[in-house]
Amino acid sequence: MLTVGKIAALVGGDVRGNAATPIEGFNSIDKASQGDITFLSNEKYLKHLNDSTASAILMHPKSYDVSIEQACILVDNVYVAIADTIEALAPFTIKIPVDTNLSHIAETAHIGEDVKIGVFTTISREVEIGDNTKIHAHVFVGEGVTIGKGCIIYPGVRLYDNVHIGDNVIIHANAVIGSDGFGFAPQRDGTFKKIPQIGDVIIENNVEIGANTVIDRAAVGSTIIREGVKLDNLIQVAHNVEIGAHTVMAAQVGVAGSTKLGKHCQVGGQAGIVGHLNIADQTRIQAQSGMIKSVKEPGTKWYGYPAIDYNNYLKSFAIYKNLPDLQSRIKELEKRLQELQQSLDK
Amino acid sequence: MLTVGKIAALVGGDVRGNAATPIEGFNSIDKASQGDITFLSNEKYLKHLNDSTASAILMHPKSYDVSIEQACILVDNVYVAIADTIEALAPFTIKIPVDTNLSHIAETAHIGEDVKIGVFTTISREVEIGDNTKIHAHVFVGEGVTIGKGCIIYPGVRLYDNVHIGDNVIIHANAVIGSDGFGFAPQRDGTFKKIPQIGDVIIENNVEIGANTVIDRAAVGSTIIREGVKLDNLIQVAHNVEIGAHTVMAAQVGVAGSTKLGKHCQVGGQAGIVGHLNIADQTRIQAQSGMIKSVKEPGTKWYGYPAIDYNNYLKSFAIYKNLPDLQSRIKELEKRLQELQQSLDK
Amino acid sequence: MLTVGKIAALVGGDVRGNAATPIEGFNSIDKASQGDITFLSNEKYLKHLNDSTASAILMHPKSYDVSIEQACILVDNVYVAIADTIEALAPFTIKIPVDTNLSHIAETAHIGEDVKIGVFTTISREVEIGDNTKIHAHVFVGEGVTIGKGCIIYPGVRLYDNVHIGDNVIIHANAVIGSDGFGFAPQRDGTFKKIPQIGDVIIENNVEIGANTVIDRAAVGSTIIREGVKLDNLIQVAHNVEIGAHTVMAAQVGVAGSTKLGKHCQVGGQAGIVGHLNIADQTRIQAQSGMIKSVKEPGTKWYGYPAIDYNNYLKSFAIYKNLPDLQSRIKELEKRLQELQQSLDK
Repeated sequence: MLTVGKIAALVGGDVRGNAATPIEGFNSIDKASQGDITFLSNEKYLKHLNDSTASAILMHPKSYDVSIEQACILVDNVYVAIADTIEALAPFTIKIPVDTNLSHIAETAHIGEDVKIGVFTTISREVEIGDNTKIHAHVFVGEGVTIGKGCIIYPGVRLYDNVHIGDNVIIHANAVIGSDGFGFAPQRDGTFKKIPQIGDVIIENNVEIGANTVIDRAAVGSTIIREGVKLDNLIQVAHNVEIGAHTVMAAQVGVAGSTKLGKHCQVGGQAGIVGHLNIADQTRIQAQSGMIKSVKEPGTKWYGYPAIDYNNYLKSFAIYKNLPDLQSRIKELEKRLQELQQSLDK
Repeated sequence: MLTVGKIAALVGGDVRGNAATPIEGFNSIDKASQGDITFLSNEKYLKHLNDSTASAILMHPKSYDVSIEQACILVDNVYVAIADTIEALAPFTIKIPVDTNLSHIAETAHIGEDVKIGVFTTISREVEIGDNTKIHAHVFVGEGVTIGKGCIIYPGVRLYDNVHIGDNVIIHANAVIGSDGFGFAPQRDGTFKKIPQIGDVIIENNVEIGANTVIDRAAVGSTIIREGVKLDNLIQVAHNVEIGAHTVMAAQVGVAGSTKLGKHCQVGGQAGIVGHLNIADQTRIQAQSGMIKSVKEPGTKWYGYPAIDYNNYLKSFAIYKNLPDLQSRIKELEKRLQELQQSLDK
Repeated sequence: MLTVGKIAALVGGDVRGNAATPIEGFNSIDKASQGDITFLSNEKYLKHLNDSTASAILMHPKSYDVSIEQACILVDNVYVAIADTIEALAPFTIKIPVDTNLSHIAETAHIGEDVKIGVFTTISREVEIGDNTKIHAHVFVGEGVTIGKGCIIYPGVRLYDNVHIGDNVIIHANAVIGSDGFGFAPQRDGTFKKIPQIGDVIIENNVEIGANTVIDRAAVGSTIIREGVKLDNLIQVAHNVEIGAHTVMAAQVGVAGSTKLGKHCQVGGQAGIVGHLNIADQTRIQAQSGMIKSVKEPGTKWYGYPAIDYNNYLKSFAIYKNLPDLQSRIKELEKRLQELQQSLDK
């Protein structure tokens, strides 16, 4: 049985209150009940604590108050502590339906130890799959694909030929990796000739890719997703893009061909980045923004359509909202100046 | 054989012209021919009636004119009448290829009466499926999923574990329900630790979900799609979002985590809504808008990036289009004032 | 063995340097090594040539310089030459895993010569498939679908009933064609009644459709994708849309219901086009733009939200960025005019 004390030891936190309090589950502050541990991420939720029957609370030391009746675990990084606590309380197990009569595994595929392959999944020739990797049902793995150790590939993922995936990568349902880049040569008559896309895709370790996201293969060379990158759902990554390590992108972002993003960037939902740009490390791009030029200085923040400096966009938008007022003031100035001049001309 | 009179009775409309006119099909005004009934939704299409060989027309009483030669059925709600007419003329039948040797149904799954399950479909353990539900080919249904009565699940839909679906729900091809929310705790070294997503998804009765749309499971608790909601294709619904009853969203909308939308809202295509907002009932959000704050008053209309009051956006944009002119007027004022002052200083 | 001379003959180019140089592969200028042919699309990459061990270079005659040591092939259309060269060096072969025990093909399906059908693929009743068409694994083909000759359908594609596809069409993974249009009749109580979508989808010859793109079937009549259209990934095409021949759309574009685009249009990524518009031939729509009205004149260029003339948008945006400055100038004018008037009033 887990207790507040054991969880505190696990997450490296300090206990306030009864360390022997037993903990059986984790829930949000409005739903946690006796036996549950919850968390406080924002002091505005402090008021909920009085009504809560939760047995314990994870919080930052700054949020703690001696009047709190529940046992508390004080930690600097609440979200990391939440992750550790949930893992301890409800260890993740992936349940994959297996029936070797209903899956298709090529004889020349190399399958590691403790690999699971779900029903209606295709493993093509010359595929390599590392130990402990779990391939769910309904997955397509093309020829020459390599998948590292400890990966989870969810139902409906499509890996075209020669996609290379590192260790501990998670790919969510119906994502497509390695589809042809959008490359066509315009011909004299206005029609288009397909340029064969002969490159590949490299996904490094610890990457997570969201549902229905698409990553195209390179025209030549590689489309590269560096270590630790997290991509949300319905994202478009075009051919020859490179996304730097530990960069995160929210849902529905689009990155056009050959653009390179640095490390530790943050891209808000529905933002778009045009092709052939270089975006420096730690760049932050606001949701729905449209990046149309490269960024050389690390750590800058962008907003707008096309995107400009974040603060400048906000300042301009504040005036934009009052443009009718600004126009009236100009009209008034014109009128007053006219009247002044007429009175002087008399 | 259906006639104008029978259809009028069915849709609750009044006949003008020959009620005995036989009707065999339904088509648009430019394509309908003899035996077809068509509709007039906009008086600007009245001119097409002379050229049309359609046998009958559904229209609003206001659109009717005695000079129309075809039989007419006058109804207040033309679109509801269209739906009823098509249903009567061409009853919907879903054709699902079945071969029990090529589907995988866990022994512990509870399947209702008159359920169809297509080829290459997986029904995992402890699943419950209500009467008359049709699960097409290539569908994945995870452990502990419940699906109500009279649902249609199209090919390639992925239902992660513990997704709960009500009655008469339609889910289109390749939609993903219950994928992990995008939750990561930033660590001191700039990398991210995955926060296990242990919540679920609840889809209430009469919901329709478009192709390739993604609805993430909650971090803790539930992501909830209330009764009668209609979601178009390629929509992103993040973890812990709640969408109120009878709200409609056009394609490619994105809703970020923990946002709650009220009832009867309308969200235009490609609009984005940031996380942790509360949007009041009957809010209308224009296509491509970016909602960045909560809406308390019901029935308001929003537009822009970030979104502001719809009419104010239009007024500001009207001036935005003429900003070069505005700038010239300021330049002219500066020049005239300068000249005036110089002439006075002489 | 291919040589520079043979490739030049193939692409219709002129050789500079040794036509007998053997060529084994194709790569980008920064990665090509001995035996490779590369290309120069932009003179700013000329500097890379000195460091490159590539054996030959495709380039426009204007880019050529006698100091270049490698063999050169001079061609007017470099990209078409690239496509031809890659095809000659690395002929495309699609590798489809086949096992007739693990696919489902209805007896009434008509399958042409040299057709391949992958594992876990469903071919429904009354389907017609033309010669040389390749249907990959995990594909669903609904009743009454017709597919022409020489097509490639990638894994996870879903073709609803009665979709019609021409010759040499390529459809990438998890694309959905023929899903119901988003048609609902609002009822008096604020709920929605589904309008049955009884139309179809017609895809003409030489179309390419990207991964996870969705094309809805028409309400009545047809959604039509004309000859040679190229659609990137994650695009939404609503019911009754018609896209004119040889129009190209970048990823994540959305086109709302009943809109008709002309021929040879170019639509940038994430752009949105509202319903019921007519867009003239050769219209160019900038990425992320929102088209809200029809375009009558061919060859115009649009930008903005809502979209206006491209150059006007740029001019207005240039001032938008400096709105705080504009506001200050107005403030200054007001102050100076006030002071002037006060001094005159004395």
